[in-house]
Amino acid sequence: MSTLEQTLTSMEKSNALLENTLRNQNVSSLALFQKEGTYQPASFKTSETLLNALEDDVKKTFPSIAQKQANQLLECIPSQDQVTGKKIAVLFSGGPASGGHNVVAGIKAVLGAANTLYGVKAGPKGLIEGDLFELNDDMVAEVLNLGGFDLLGSDRTKIKTPEQFEAVKNTVKTFNLDGIIVVGGDDSNTNAAFLAENLAETGCSVIGVPKTIDGDLQIGALLPISFGFDTATKIYSEMVGNILQDTPSSRKYWHFVKLMGRSASHVALEVALQTRPQLCFISEEVAAKKMSLNEIISECVDVIVSRSKQGKDYGVVLIPEGLIEFIPELKGLMSQLNDSIAQQDDSFNSLDFDEKKAKISPTLSSSLSQLFNSLPNAIQQQLLLERDSHGNVQVSQIPTELLLIEMIQNKLKEVAPEVKFSSNRHFFGYEGRCGAPSLFDSSYTFNLGLIAGSLAARAKSGYIAALSDLSDGGKAYAIPIPNLVVQEKRHGTTEMVIKKALVEMDSKAFKYFQSRRKDWAGSDKFTSPGPRQFWGPVANQVPFTVALNQGYSSLNFDFK
Amino acid sequence: MSTLEQTLTSMEKSNALLENTLRNQNVSSLALFQKEGTYQPASFKTSETLLNALEDDVKKTFPSIAQKQANQLLECIPSQDQVTGKKIAVLFSGGPASGGHNVVAGIKAVLGAANTLYGVKAGPKGLIEGDLFELNDDMVAEVLNLGGFDLLGSDRTKIKTPEQFEAVKNTVKTFNLDGIIVVGGDDSNTNAAFLAENLAETGCSVIGVPKTIDGDLQIGALLPISFGFDTATKIYSEMVGNILQDTPSSRKYWHFVKLMGRSASHVALEVALQTRPQLCFISEEVAAKKMSLNEIISECVDVIVSRSKQGKDYGVVLIPEGLIEFIPELKGLMSQLNDSIAQQDDSFNSLDFDEKKAKISPTLSSSLSQLFNSLPNAIQQQLLLERDSHGNVQVSQIPTELLLIEMIQNKLKEVAPEVKFSSNRHFFGYEGRCGAPSLFDSSYTFNLGLIAGSLAARAKSGYIAALSDLSDGGKAYAIPIPNLVVQEKRHGTTEMVIKKALVEMDSKAFKYFQSRRKDWAGSDKFTSPGPRQFWGPVANQVPFTVALNQGYSSLNFDFK
Repeated sequence: MSTLEQTLTSMEKSNALLENTLRNQNVSSLALFQKEGTYQPASFKTSETLLNALEDDVKKTFPSIAQKQANQLLECIPSQDQVTGKKIAVLFSGGPASGGHNVVAGIKAVLGAANTLYGVKAGPKGLIEGDLFELNDDMVAEVLNLGGFDLLGSDRTKIKTPEQFEAVKNTVKTFNLDGIIVVGGDDSNTNAAFLAENLAETGCSVIGVPKTIDGDLQIGALLPISFGFDTATKIYSEMVGNILQDTPSSRKYWHFVKLMGRSASHVALEVALQTRPQLCFISEEVAAKKMSLNEIISECVDVIVSRSKQGKDYGVVLIPEGLIEFIPELKGLMSQLNDSIAQQDDSFNSLDFDEKKAKISPTLSSSLSQLFNSLPNAIQQQLLLERDSHGNVQVSQIPTELLLIEMIQNKLKEVAPEVKFSSNRHFFGYEGRCGAPSLFDSSYTFNLGLIAGSLAARAKSGYIAALSDLSDGGKAYAIPIPNLVVQEKRHGTTEMVIKKALVEMDSKAFKYFQSRRKDWAGSDKFTSPGPRQFWGPVANQVPFTVALNQGYSSLNFDFK
Repeated sequence: MSTLEQTLTSMEKSNALLENTLRNQNVSSLALFQKEGTYQPASFKTSETLLNALEDDVKKTFPSIAQKQANQLLECIPSQDQVTGKKIAVLFSGGPASGGHNVVAGIKAVLGAANTLYGVKAGPKGLIEGDLFELNDDMVAEVLNLGGFDLLGSDRTKIKTPEQFEAVKNTVKTFNLDGIIVVGGDDSNTNAAFLAENLAETGCSVIGVPKTIDGDLQIGALLPISFGFDTATKIYSEMVGNILQDTPSSRKYWHFVKLMGRSASHVALEVALQTRPQLCFISEEVAAKKMSLNEIISECVDVIVSRSKQGKDYGVVLIPEGLIEFIPELKGLMSQLNDSIAQQDDSFNSLDFDEKKAKISPTLSSSLSQLFNSLPNAIQQQLLLERDSHGNVQVSQIPTELLLIEMIQNKLKEVAPEVKFSSNRHFFGYEGRCGAPSLFDSSYTFNLGLIAGSLAARAKSGYIAALSDLSDGGKAYAIPIPNLVVQEKRHGTTEMVIKKALVEMDSKAFKYFQSRRKDWAGSDKFTSPGPRQFWGPVANQVPFTVALNQGYSSLNFDFK
């Protein structure tokens, strides 16, 4: 082997130059956790911010933890009290998001050598099965500042049956656990609260850490954003910016880009603000205005035709992956399909398309049946696929971008056959979940780990770790999860869940978008914000939606 | 508007923070072009490197330029001779590639204020139509270090008829042009030689600049790579690396990633070397080994089954977009289809699929017809779509990744029904053509512009600008295009073309890949090289395939 070949081989297994450099970079953290070059668990005081009292049903659902929490928001304060001998476990739940490894690193740092940190393998299932291993400093140093959840793995098991809770109690007993930290999205944090309640008698606390690239776990000023959102949207913005830059160069394509983000359109809105495309639909607006599929197609066609008159047969359309669920007539259809499929037995998912259709068709009203049959075949097929573990249709699998393209083509033939319309379609999702975290996500998650580790070490239970004032020093909080819980109808039954944060029509970010989009549609005012940087003047930007909604005066983060 | 909103609005139209910062960065260039803080056209001396004599047919095709060039490779040398009063035009031809704007900036810099540079709008077509405008310093400064071809636009018109050549002569006369610089790929550079020959009598020289993200325009040590390849492969490697990082985190998907690159597999090989995926097919190897579609499927299935036994039901498969053309039985089919479609009249492209099939089927032998009918419907449809302007099937439109997935699924059901196989598919192409150029591409293209501008200023014609020794100071050359031309059969007729550089089975890059890939398939040795950086320790890397093939001792570029 030549020297160069040896160099290349030495890079294998996450040792690319960037990976090796990043894992040796320091992470900025709040001073309140620091003490003489190491970290020290914070303690907590009651915040002056008041929370609403719990609904009776919620109070009854979480009697033990709600009583202890007494509706009080907690704020981290520096502490001199040592914590020793605690045994804490951490697990990832649901899809990966950049920064997960730094949450673990933050927990490990704040627990220090005087306590034990276990990693739970492959998500909640590992907790049920007792698949835990002790995390040492080397293991954590190996993944610091790197993307992925592979240190532990993840899954989507929902701990809900009495047998499952018993199994977890067994794990708690076996490993003598004082605390469990669940890194997950809205559903996983709801589950964390249920687990906290069920484990109350054992003395083992349960803490949640707000993860999701979708950005739909936000709690106003207290928790401006979940982690992973910044990295994912920077990755998607880079790609969308590159494609926008391609359009006036090649001068012949309309690109339809679907963006991951489940029901909420936070991702699409953020990418739109960073790149200024010709069109971006916001699902929540479609729902609020009760826009029909036909109106959406007409809006596209109007822009395409008017740009064509300027000689611009090109552009970019952003589509949030949940769009299809928010178009009223399709929403009704999908909700009915979710219910109908929930009533089928397990064999349903192994049927072929025609067999599924034969089983489901009789359950639809004649108007829904007509709508279903009017959709392109590819869409019909996806709508009958297996549901996710929460009983919802897997919206990321529905080729909404193809639906729009086909319907636009048909409409153009009718109203403006002279317009040249060539299209390409893209779906950005998996690319954005496991990239090396942006400097914001690296630092943000390390701090969330410090907060979560402090909460577990101090025997607080049923809280979600939170950080606010991101561009102004940072403030560390613990929010009682029951205070975030509402009742919601899901696949036929009513459940207690954390309310998904959707894009608000009166939010500053949406209103700013609304004020600029007409200008973006007609002219080429796009930006190509480029790849996220780890050095240089662009490295510290926070998401634009967050800066707008929180009224920050700076686009950079700052943790003191 | 709040201050923050004003800041965001001020970013519109390519004024994102990164864009503004990049356009103010200096570009490193060879000292031989520099003189007292400005640039000075080089002059040229005959290189000691000898070129092969021209074939008679080639000599006859390019009588004027071949005689002047006398088979001599030229090398740039510093010169004190001023060049003044020259009028040069530059155009982009074909698909965009990152760095095109810096080629223009290099030409503008070396011509300086004493000469005139025209931009040709929207490619070769603009040259025919005389659509030129004078490029001033501000216009060039505006796009320095930024991606895209939008300063000029581009198209794929091939200048070939006597009327077209006459029209170009008219443009030359109207603008009093001394030189035309064509920034394009292998076909565009072939066309540049024909144009040089046809314009010989006018005294207007024609120069080519080697552009293509596909990397298939390479000339051994003299021109190790075309520009745009580095940026595109870094962008694709970032995405593939992120997806690889996702696989052991989510633990449930096989991702099939098709990569742009036309016939050659340089892009796939480069991305494989940077990311170390479980599988990567190299079209040229498939052709060399005469691998059938069935053998390719078997290779995938073997790896999928053996990883499944280790509990790893996940991985990434890279597929070069040209793969389907290199599988012998499919190659034969596509070649016959190209010929059959070339013989159809213009109305063919507006027929629907069934009508097309009815016209083409009778032209196929019974074995080819059987093969065609055995392919999934989506593939059949794509194979009958409109050809590109060179008469080739648009391979980027063929969903090869879907073909593999469907056939793997079927085979798994047969040989290993117990294996869990969930798949996702991706196509990365347009995302990589217009990103802000990597530091390598920025600097490389600026230097190519300095060389091309010098050639045009010194009345050299029919040359391609080239730069070698990229990690060791850089050497600037001018290669006579006729010496690169061979005869090739394309859609039924024989043409003079620059031979496409394919991946060589005995190249160091391929051999290194071959030596490592078995290890990558079985274990998770992938890397996630991350987004390209413009600052910090990772900013100066060259493509790994180039470093290996050229025997560089360093992975960084260095221009002196």
